[in-house]
Amino acid sequence: MKIYSHELAPNPRRVRIFLAEKGITVAYEQVDIFSGKNRTPEFLQKNPLGGIPVLEFDDGTYLAESVAICRYFEGMFPEPPLMGVDPRDQAFVEMWNRRMELEIFGPIGRAMQHTNPIFKGRLEQFPAFGDTQRARALERLEWLDSILAQRPFVAGDRYTIADITALVGIDLGRGYAGLEIPPAIRHVHRWHQAVSSRPSAKA
Amino acid sequence: MKIYSHELAPNPRRVRIFLAEKGITVAYEQVDIFSGKNRTPEFLQKNPLGGIPVLEFDDGTYLAESVAICRYFEGMFPEPPLMGVDPRDQAFVEMWNRRMELEIFGPIGRAMQHTNPIFKGRLEQFPAFGDTQRARALERLEWLDSILAQRPFVAGDRYTIADITALVGIDLGRGYAGLEIPPAIRHVHRWHQAVSSRPSAKA
Repeated sequence: MKIYSHELAPNPRRVRIFLAEKGITVAYEQVDIFSGKNRTPEFLQKNPLGGIPVLEFDDGTYLAESVAICRYFEGMFPEPPLMGVDPRDQAFVEMWNRRMELEIFGPIGRAMQHTNPIFKGRLEQFPAFGDTQRARALERLEWLDSILAQRPFVAGDRYTIADITALVGIDLGRGYAGLEIPPAIRHVHRWHQAVSSRPSAKA
Repeated sequence: MKIYSHELAPNPRRVRIFLAEKGITVAYEQVDIFSGKNRTPEFLQKNPLGGIPVLEFDDGTYLAESVAICRYFEGMFPEPPLMGVDPRDQAFVEMWNRRMELEIFGPIGRAMQHTNPIFKGRLEQFPAFGDTQRARALERLEWLDSILAQRPFVAGDRYTIADITALVGIDLGRGYAGLEIPPAIRHVHRWHQAVSSRPSAKA
């Protein structure tokens, strides 16, 4: 079993942090996305959409999509729970993870794709659209601040996959989309320092 | 327990189809999104992001996000399974549901938001960006055709939540984003007819 990954890509980082939190060790194989190694016919056999990460099972089956890979490991190794502990709790963690994806990670990713020069030529950029996405992410970070004013982690008292998604999205924004966390959003700062200081953040 | 819904909105339809497939009856309360009833202070108490559907529990707790609501009911009423039957199967259903969301439903939704006059004034529209999203969805439908050439349903031999996401996304494209399924994509047509003829499609 191995995972196709890249040091700088956000989605493989989500899986690496998830596995580090579980204490699970899986071999990683680097795919050089900057030279398009994820678009070769060989790699498209593994994932026809060309994305990473991809989990390769020993029987030669391939599982793509970060959260699907996390869900597999959560099912096989439930402790510590990162996706909820019973149907109701699992549903609320799902809600928070989706809010982090759809309202923060997603807009930040689109801001990056449409405004960062590294995407020039890889897709048709609409910088003004990218700017609306950055503004939306910032608005949602302010909303997240009001949530984190009330509790230590995104989904409640326990660290979950929703914290991982938010962390990776926010770090992507800081590194590649010109989106720093405004100082006034102090609860997000406190949370960001706490989750960044966990050993898993460096996975 | 009740679910805040709207007849014409795609996301509540995902949950209604899911519950119909399970044979679960829940009361629906209509929220008139066209007159902004989902943006009133009262509704924002239920979901601060203003989206529907929202599930209201009898204890006054609110659960938002379609897939989170589906996951709650899947956990409480596992039969028939719509989200996989064991950790590995659940992971593959998750992969396919995410592919339908991220590659088909998502681009179609953005094509609609950026090109349909009903969104004028509700967000800053970038029609040329919307056109790229329509083109991307079309490209992905061609890829989906190659998948459905090999099996009856999106995730394999069994109807799952991935079929629901694809159906609702495609119907949204047909109704609101000027995206008809090209006749040459015949496996998608066969599948679309099959899933549309299930009683759940009218839920």
